[in-house]
Order: sequence, then C-alpha cells, then structure tokens
Amino acid sequence: MNQAQIVDFDHDADADPAGLTFTFGGAAPVASLRPGSLLRTWTHDCFVGRVRQESDLASQVCDPRQLNPQTGPFYIEGAEPGDTLAVHFVSIEPRYAWGVSSTVPLFGALTATPTTALLHPALAERTWRYELDLAARLVHYSARDTHYTAELPLDPMHGTVGVAPALGEVRSSLAPGDWGGNMDTPEMRAGTTCYLGVNVEGAMFSFGDGHARQGEGETCGVAVETAMDSVVIVDLIKAVATPWPKLESDDFIMTTGSTKPLEDAFRISQQQLIYWVSELTGLSTLDSYQLVAQAVLSPVANVVDVVYTMVAKFPKHLLHGVAPMGGVHERLRRQAAAYLEGVR
Amino acid sequence: MNQAQIVDFDHDADADPAGLTFTFGGAAPVASLRPGSLLRTWTHDCFVGRVRQESDLASQVCDPRQLNPQTGPFYIEGAEPGDTLAVHFVSIEPRYAWGVSSTVPLFGALTATPTTALLHPALAERTWRYELDLAARLVHYSARDTHYTAELPLDPMHGTVGVAPALGEVRSSLAPGDWGGNMDTPEMRAGTTCYLGVNVEGAMFSFGDGHARQGEGETCGVAVETAMDSVVIVDLIKAVATPWPKLESDDFIMTTGSTKPLEDAFRISQQQLIYWVSELTGLSTLDSYQLVAQAVLSPVANVVDVVYTMVAKFPKHLLHGVAPMGGVHERLRRQAAAYLEGVR
Amino acid sequence: MNQAQIVDFDHDADADPAGLTFTFGGAAPVASLRPGSLLRTWTHDCFVGRVRQESDLASQVCDPRQLNPQTGPFYIEGAEPGDTLAVHFVSIEPRYAWGVSSTVPLFGALTATPTTALLHPALAERTWRYELDLAARLVHYSARDTHYTAELPLDPMHGTVGVAPALGEVRSSLAPGDWGGNMDTPEMRAGTTCYLGVNVEGAMFSFGDGHARQGEGETCGVAVETAMDSVVIVDLIKAVATPWPKLESDDFIMTTGSTKPLEDAFRISQQQLIYWVSELTGLSTLDSYQLVAQAVLSPVANVVDVVYTMVAKFPKHLLHGVAPMGGVHERLRRQAAAYLEGVR
Amino acid sequence: MNQAQIVDFDHDADADPAGLTFTFGGAAPVASLRPGSLLRTWTHDCFVGRVRQESDLASQVCDPRQLNPQTGPFYIEGAEPGDTLAVHFVSIEPRYAWGVSSTVPLFGALTATPTTALLHPALAERTWRYELDLAARLVHYSARDTHYTAELPLDPMHGTVGVAPALGEVRSSLAPGDWGGNMDTPEMRAGTTCYLGVNVEGAMFSFGDGHARQGEGETCGVAVETAMDSVVIVDLIKAVATPWPKLESDDFIMTTGSTKPLEDAFRISQQQLIYWVSELTGLSTLDSYQLVAQAVLSPVANVVDVVYTMVAKFPKHLLHGVAPMGGVHERLRRQAAAYLEGVR
Repeated sequence: MNQAQIVDFDHDADADPAGLTFTFGGAAPVASLRPGSLLRTWTHDCFVGRVRQESDLASQVCDPRQLNPQTGPFYIEGAEPGDTLAVHFVSIEPRYAWGVSSTVPLFGALTATPTTALLHPALAERTWRYELDLAARLVHYSARDTHYTAELPLDPMHGTVGVAPALGEVRSSLAPGDWGGNMDTPEMRAGTTCYLGVNVEGAMFSFGDGHARQGEGETCGVAVETAMDSVVIVDLIKAVATPWPKLESDDFIMTTGSTKPLEDAFRISQQQLIYWVSELTGLSTLDSYQLVAQAVLSPVANVVDVVYTMVAKFPKHLLHGVAPMGGVHERLRRQAAAYLEGVR
Repeated sequence: MNQAQIVDFDHDADADPAGLTFTFGGAAPVASLRPGSLLRTWTHDCFVGRVRQESDLASQVCDPRQLNPQTGPFYIEGAEPGDTLAVHFVSIEPRYAWGVSSTVPLFGALTATPTTALLHPALAERTWRYELDLAARLVHYSARDTHYTAELPLDPMHGTVGVAPALGEVRSSLAPGDWGGNMDTPEMRAGTTCYLGVNVEGAMFSFGDGHARQGEGETCGVAVETAMDSVVIVDLIKAVATPWPKLESDDFIMTTGSTKPLEDAFRISQQQLIYWVSELTGLSTLDSYQLVAQAVLSPVANVVDVVYTMVAKFPKHLLHGVAPMGGVHERLRRQAAAYLEGVR
Repeated sequence: MNQAQIVDFDHDADADPAGLTFTFGGAAPVASLRPGSLLRTWTHDCFVGRVRQESDLASQVCDPRQLNPQTGPFYIEGAEPGDTLAVHFVSIEPRYAWGVSSTVPLFGALTATPTTALLHPALAERTWRYELDLAARLVHYSARDTHYTAELPLDPMHGTVGVAPALGEVRSSLAPGDWGGNMDTPEMRAGTTCYLGVNVEGAMFSFGDGHARQGEGETCGVAVETAMDSVVIVDLIKAVATPWPKLESDDFIMTTGSTKPLEDAFRISQQQLIYWVSELTGLSTLDSYQLVAQAVLSPVANVVDVVYTMVAKFPKHLLHGVAPMGGVHERLRRQAAAYLEGVR
Repeated sequence: MNQAQIVDFDHDADADPAGLTFTFGGAAPVASLRPGSLLRTWTHDCFVGRVRQESDLASQVCDPRQLNPQTGPFYIEGAEPGDTLAVHFVSIEPRYAWGVSSTVPLFGALTATPTTALLHPALAERTWRYELDLAARLVHYSARDTHYTAELPLDPMHGTVGVAPALGEVRSSLAPGDWGGNMDTPEMRAGTTCYLGVNVEGAMFSFGDGHARQGEGETCGVAVETAMDSVVIVDLIKAVATPWPKLESDDFIMTTGSTKPLEDAFRISQQQLIYWVSELTGLSTLDSYQLVAQAVLSPVANVVDVVYTMVAKFPKHLLHGVAPMGGVHERLRRQAAAYLEGVR
C-alpha cells in the first residue's frame, strides 16, 4: 500500500464569514487533492461560532445567509461525472470542549415552518450550552428551566458532506439531496466511508456542520453543534455511478434518500439498498426486495431540513464476504489505522 | 406479590376462518380477564395458515376479508375509557418451525397501491418459505431465482396489538392507529410492555399477526409470518390516559405515531415522547424537546399498512430512576420471570 | 317514466343527540327505500344546532363524540356488494336563515392538529354567525374584530354523503374514504348525482353536514354550517362497482380520492377518472391519461378532515354523447325536474 | 401615462441549445430592461423544438440537461432584494400551429419516479401531436390507439416564470419554488400579472415553457407544449416583499405555494392569501382565515415537477375596491390594452 499524500488545510478562523462557502456547487475550489489523499482540516460550527452561550440567540447574532459553512470545496483530480467519490472519516473530534443547541423560530420538526405554513406564532427561541468531557466521551445536558442534568454519549459526526449537484444547480448547505449536503445522519461518524456520485469535473467536495451528537431526526432542528477537527481520506472510484449517497461501516452498508414526504425518502433509500444488494449478491430484484424487507434497519436521519433524509442499513455479514465498491472501505480503514497508529 | 390468575385460551384451529375476529371493535369478547391475569394462548398467522409453501399465492388461497385474524377480543374487568391497559409480553414463540413471506399485488412500500394510485400493473406475486431453527434462533432465507441463502436472527414479535377504537369506530385489523392495531413494529417482542389507552368499557383487547422477524418498515408488506404461542400479562392502570400506544422495555421508553404522511407519524411519536419525558422528569416542554432531540432513536415500524407507524425511543437511564406508569413494567417483568422460572 | 315513490322522513328535532347516527356503518336503518324513491328529509347541522351565536364555542357546548350527525342510514332494497348507489340531489335548502362557522382548537388546515402534532398551543377559538338571504341567495359575512362585511353567493351542499364501509368497518362521520363520508366538496350541490359503491346488503346510505357554502379546502375546518331541507332521489345500478365515489353534473363527470398525503388523494382521483374516461370512450389507458392530463380540472375538496379529499372533473362534451352509468343522471334530472315542477 | 419603452428580444432559433439558459440564477443577463418596459420576444418549447411528431421520443432526441429553456434572464434596472417584480402578460400566442405532449419514462403524477422510487419498470413512452386552430382557438387531440378525437379550448400560458433564487442558489428550470420557476399553473395566461420577490440585484427575470393548454395538475407531466410569441410588461414595485409568487387577474388575486407534500403547498398558498387579504382589508388574521375559508378556490397547478404547486384564488370584488400592489395590475392592463389597440 502506498503512503497516502497528507494535506493540511487550515482556515483563518477570524476571517469574514461572508467569505466562507455556504453552498454545494458555485464556489471556486480552495485546494486540489489527489485521490487517496489524507486531509487534515477543521470545520466551523453551523453558527460560524457566533452562538456560544445561553444569551446568544441565533436569530440575533447570525446572518441567515451564513449558516452551515463548508470546509471546501476541494477539487478532486481526475473526478468526472459518472465516477464515485469515497470519503472515509478517519477521525472527527470536537475542536473545543463545548457545544450549543437551540430552538430557532419557525424551524424544527414540531413547529410551523415556512413550508408547513400555519398561523401559529413561533415557539420561544432558546439556546442550550453543552459542556463536553472529551476524555470521558460525554456530552453534559443542563435544563434551562429546572436543575435537571443528563450525560449523553459523545458521538461526533458531520451533518453536511457533499459534492456539486447536477444540472448546473447550486444548492444551499442547508439542503440535502442526491449530491449529499445537509443529510444530518448520526451514521456519518469516524470509521465510516461515504460514497457520493460525481456530477461535475473535480467533484467539488466539501463538508462541515459537526455535531458532538444528534438524535435520529434532529427533532428540534439543531444538534449539539461544534467546530470539529477532522481527518478524512478522499478516494475516487472510476466509472461507478452512485445516484444517491451511500455509506459503509465495518458492519453495515447503508443507503440514503432525501426528499419529502418522508415516505418517499424511505422509498428512495430502500429501493437503492435493494438494487445494491442485488448487485453485490446476484439476487434478482424480487429476491433482494424480500431479503432487505426482513433484514433492514431504517433509522430517520433528519425531519427538519429543506427536505428530509432516511437511511436504510443492511448487515454486511449477509453479503457472504463480497466487498462493496471493490473493497475500498476496508482499504481506507487500514490506511486510517496506519495513520492513527503513527500519530498516537 | 399475589399469584397471578393464569388463563388458557385455545382456538379451534380448524374452525371456519369466517368466524375469527378481523377487526378492533365490533366483536363480542371471547373471554373476560381480571387485571393482572397471565394469558396463555396462540395466534394464527396473517394468512390464517393458508399460505404454507412457495406454490401458495395469497391472492389465490386467501379471502381478502380474512387477513390478520386476532386472538380476542378479551374483556378486561374494570377497564373504562380514560384508563390505560398494560400488556406485557412474557414470551412469543413460533408455533411451527416455518414461516412465510410474499409479495402481494398492489401492496407494499415499493409498489403502486390502491392509495398511491398509479397506472403500473402489479409487481409479480411470489411466496418465500422460511425454515426456522428454534434452537439456534435462526431464520433461514432462500432466494427463489438463485441459490443464495442467508441466516437471520430469530426475533419473534406481534404485528397487531390493540383495543377497540374511540368514537364507536370499528377498524380492520390491517390498520394501525391510536388504538394500536397493525403497528408492525419489531419492538413488540418478549420482555416489552405495551400501553394502550382504553376507549370502551372492557377495553376489548386482542392481538395477532406474529412475525418470526421483520425489517424496520416491513418494506415488501409481509414479514416472516408465523402462528405464535404467546404468553402475556394484562394489567390495568386506572385513570391514566394514553392517547397513542407506548412501549417500555428494560432499556427504553417508546412512543408510537400512526398516520400518513410519514413525517406526521414521526411528529406524533416525538411529541408524545417529549410530553412523556416532561411528565417523568419535571422538565419544561422546551427543555424536554431539547433533550429528546439529542437522545432519541427513531426507527420506522411500517410504511406499508393503511397508515404508517413510527417509533421514538428514549434511554431509561436518562430518567434517573423514575419509573414510568408507576413501575408497572418492572413489576410485570418480575411476575413474568417468576412464571418462566416455574415452567422451566 | 314511472312516478317515483315519495318518502318523507322527519326527525324529532328535540331528541337526545346521543340517539343520532354519527357513523357510517354500525347503525340500524331508520327506514327502507325502494330504488327510485324520492326522499324528502332534513339534516342537522354539524354541531347538532348547539352553536348558534358568537358566544357559543363548540368546545364548550358540543360533545366531541356528537359531531356531524347523519340522517339515516337508509336501507336500500336490493342493494348488494358490487352494486352502485346513485344519489341525485334534487334540492338542498338551508332550513333556517342563518349559519355558523368557527375555529376549533387543534382542527383545521393552518394549525397544529392531533396528527400534525406540534408543540404550539391551539389558535384562538371563535365563532362567526352568518345571516343568509335566501331570496337574494347571499351569505353575509361579518368580521369579529373590525366592521368589515362581505356578501358571498349562497351555494348549498352536503359535506357528508356515504354508505357503510367494507371489511366490517364502522367509521366516524368525521372521516371521508372510499365509502364517501365527510368528503366536504362544494360539488355536492343540487343538480348533481353522487355514485357510491355498495359494500353491504342494503347499502346503508346516510348524509348530513349541510353547508350554505364552502371554500375549496374548507381551510379553517368549518364551512357555513346549516341544517338543511333536502330532497334526494336514491337509485340503484346493479352489478356496477364504484371503488371510489364519483359525481356527475350536467357538465362534468367527477371522481374523488380521499387519503393522505394530498398528492395521493390527487392520484386516486386522477387514476379513477382516467379509467372512467377509458371505459366511456374506448380510449386506451395511455390515450386517456393524455386526454385527461390536458382537460382535467382539479379542485381541492378538504384538507382538514381525518384524511383529505381531491376532486377531478372532466367535461362531458368530450365524451361525444356517451352517457355515464347508462344515463342515470339524465333520467334522475328529468325526474327531479318533474317533481320540482309539481311542487312549484 | 408615459409611453412604455418597447424592447424586442429575438433568439437565434438554430443556435446550439447548450447555449440556452436552463436555470434560474447562475446565468449572465441577455439584456437589461427599464421598469415599465414592454418586452416582445418568444420562447422555445420545453423540448427545444426536438419533439415534433409521434415518432420523436423525448428520451431519444432530447438531452436531459436541456429541457425547459428560458428566455432571459433579463436584468431589471433598479431591482434590489426586498422589491417585487410585476410581470404582466399582454399576449401569449403559439408560434406554430402545432404542439406536442408525451409520456416521459419515470416522470408524471401516476408513475413511479426517481423520488417516488418503486420497483416498477417505466410506463410506455409515447408522443402525441396536437394541431392548433389558432383562429377557432382550438386544440385538436387525436388518440394514438383508436380513432378518438376531441377539441379542447386553446388557453395559452407559460409554465415557467421566475427570478434568481435567494441564498446564492441556482435552480434548474424544471423546479418551482419561492422564486417562481416551473409552477405550471394554467392561471399564467394573458391578462394576468405575476408578482415575484426580488432576491438579487437586477432580479434576473426569465420565462418559458409555453403550453397551448394544460389540465390542472399536468397529470402526465407534459402539457400541450409549444413555442410562444409573448409580449410582457415588466415593472418594479420598490420595497414590497413577496415571499411566494402571487398572481392577479381582473377578477382574482392569487397566491402560490410550491413544495411537497401537496398539503404543504396548499398550506403555503392559503396562508399567504390570508395574510394578503388581511393586509388589503384590515381584517385580523382570524377574520381573514374565516373569510378566505369560505370564499377561496383552490386549484392544483402541478403534481409532477421537482416539487408540487398549489394556487389559492380570492374574488377581488370582496376587497371592496382596494387595489392590490398599489393598482399596478390595472395600470399595466391599460398599458397593455393601449399597446394591443396600436398593433391591431
């Protein structure tokens, strides 16, 4: 195995947020990466660091056009439409020992929104600050109205991972879709590989929106938001199309679907999983439909963003050893282990 | 602890299926149970045993008015509207060492249906037979078109659990709703307590539709269907309303929502969980919204029935020892353990 | 043409509302009708007359189990499953010169509801009283908070028209579905024939929920509610199945679909119209799909009830003279005209 | 009244389609217009003229990245975010005496699609050619499989009308949204004014996708598609925000909402209408909710595009003479009449 090229990409943390990237597509690349490169970088939190304590309300301190800043886009050398980008998360670690969450007026799953347009006034806006115990791997919740506290497992992940969309579109980093984007699934954690279909030359990969942890559905619209120090390996699978983002962990292959209503997001993710299992096992479509129907896990990712995201998970041991995507996950996993061994 | 009354209820397995119960509400009780009774009985499979091998097609051998037969209804002594019925599953065991699944014309998540009405002809109808290894706790899948096989964990559950609906309604056992019914969640396994709001005097509890296992979503519309030998304890919680069915296991409290579109089923389950956590912890609604948003698991139950069902799960350790429903789950768990000890 | 049997059916207006019919299915017939009978009767308003002025709030003066009382059910002689009931509305006239509307807590299209379950408190409850000018055919609107008034055209209709459901179900008169029920379409006006598939012997036809007028969608959940004096002719079309309710006016054939999400209600209504046009014209399904796509009108009926209802309308002149349902609408129209001529 | 500036904008009809505009946002302006300008131009049909006869199948002769070409974008002088663009359709006339429609694989309301992802193969692809009688104002339908013909009223309209989106987004001309775009409502006919909120400097207005007529819902996904000769007046209303596109005809004010599920598009359109009626009449929100609920017409626009579009219509006579948007529609109507008088 070749030694991967290691690329360090830093931001000017104090730069004008207006200069950051808030879209998938439409932005010039910040750097160019050779396939197989290991990228060490960090991502701003979704509020560009402006919400830090209980007295900071996003609607007052944030510009609504400057949410979910992306690190990137990175131009991937040799990537062309019809290829698949493999992004392996080597490590995702909170950059600071705190995170924030909030209710945001007219945003969230259990409130009127601009698209579930009702006549109610907005729910109260409020910010919660979480202290993170990075050694004990805990996230400390403190209630605002009572003295209740709770300790939740630290489980860092990225809400947004994506490439430039097709059809010349440029999409806000608040939206998920077939280009990835703001899928907000807790499955996007270290040790996982994300597969994204390439729509434009160079793919234009970016990511951000780190969460110290997140419930399935991101019900109130905001997870435990943190800046993240992340290490990813970016690789390229030529001439393999990936219509909707897929993930692979050591134990599961996973498909995603992002649309509304939520049953259509479910349908996309399940149909894509059925086709993938067929392809990997040689099962006919009906036989794969049957097997997936009995074996699948179907967690919600988000029910709050521009459209909603569902995940479908299939246990890899049922594939009888067939390696998805030509074994790229296992290869990147070993590469990541070698890197982590070296830095320990 | 008092010794529970043990009630054995048997069917005439060869009786005319037309005499079975296919609704929630509208049927005369088959027996009366005192709260706290332990009921030993069995349930037909969803096809009333008529689909047994690959050559049996449900559309040919079944009467569409005779699907999902219920064991019951049982009249629960003292149950009145505004009470909650607690149904603890002591054991759920496949009655035979086989199960069946199938595609059913114009039924399932990835096909046109009578309500997602399109112009496509139905997908091909086909039956899969599963051999069950009850000792090894395995379900054997065999493909129809190739020689692929797979072994899935046995995980027996009941698709339908419910009471008579409100407003004088009588609902088909194919439909889920606030009365329970055909929720089709794999969480309805042995060791779990299901809470159901009582709508009519006597509650009129029934259950059925056993599955040797089921994927989340029951994507093709049919799980691994089996007749079940089941033992349940039925208890009554007076003057506690339960607007939507809830579940409790040793590790989680769970809420359900059943409606369409699927995001509305998600909203019901999450709202109910937020209110329940508030009630158990004293958290304000907004604080509970925040805590649930970071801690919840949100698996799909079914996306195939008359309406769809979502589940929301919250770890009980975050409740700091508060026992939901006055500790009935723990009490019934002990009662079940004593019973199982006795029969071993 | 035979002289139709004329049947007068009166209620005891002061009877205990608990004795009225609030379901489709599950109630004993109030009378038996021969096919072709002309029925003269009246219907309570949806609040059973308890909301009469601005100070009457439905949540205070009504029993939630006693809304949308039905006149009926009527047993139709000879009706069997697989037949179609034709209900022709000869006249629909407000029984009194006033109507009421209201906002109802957690009910309506632009509010959180029990199934679009959010964390908002209910919108304010309020009642509006409308004076009706039956001579000028006007409905007088008066604002509550300002002095604004407006005159809207009187356009009387019935919100609920239906038969007993299939599968032994009993459904609340608040729900629409394939049995008809609470479809709440303004197309259900005098001069129109409604076709309903028969699910049980005798069909068990009932109707109610009169509206002096209604916007498309019934956005706030409540129309201008009035008791109605109505005359209908009930006829029977043997051995013609009607899977979803259809309507026919002098100018249009119409189909309905009732489900959620609303696009699925649209799909049902359009699919049923395409099949009906095919059947009437001999067009292939694809040719009918094409013609309907260019010619159809697609008004919303309701987006507030248990499920939502869409209507699809096709101009009859495009049928080149083919008479739907063997010409029953035209025959009943003549019968109605003769009757109205006689009573003038 | 000043004489409007008249601007003629022509295309090179034989130019490479790749050079046309297929997005809202992201394209350089083709011309700059002063507010009040009368623009005479034409628009390609949605297939860029490549589907002309029954043997032309869109999937074979079209590039999927080159559908719905726009005429524009036009830079409107002085337009800034927070303003409203008024686009008055003076005339819309088919450029040729024929139109085409088709079924497109996996596109349309009654078929599986990439987002209502099922396991069905696509419905058959087929093209229908319509002859247009521009003098008699008729559209001639001919069945493909039988000899059935029908004459439908000519009712020319534009499917796409829009400006550049907010948040730096670039959207395909196949998508509708709050920027307008592919709303596909038959209300977009001559004599109507469309109001669009300005998101970027210069607004970047474009339009296209002419239909000789269209049913409500555009059920098969394709209307009677034609190139159009169109005359529009483009005016600017400073410092008036328009969150979602609105329309005004001589008789109705109209609002639109575009999203999924369809009930949410309904909610947006109805909420926007309620707010607009409040603003024009001084009615409180609840009083406006009540009045709109009784008076509104709610036709479907499309249930086939990237998201779906609903329209809500309110009779202008109920506004008691208040002129929306400061009377711009009436002013442009007079300006249009003067122009049409001049060219007659």
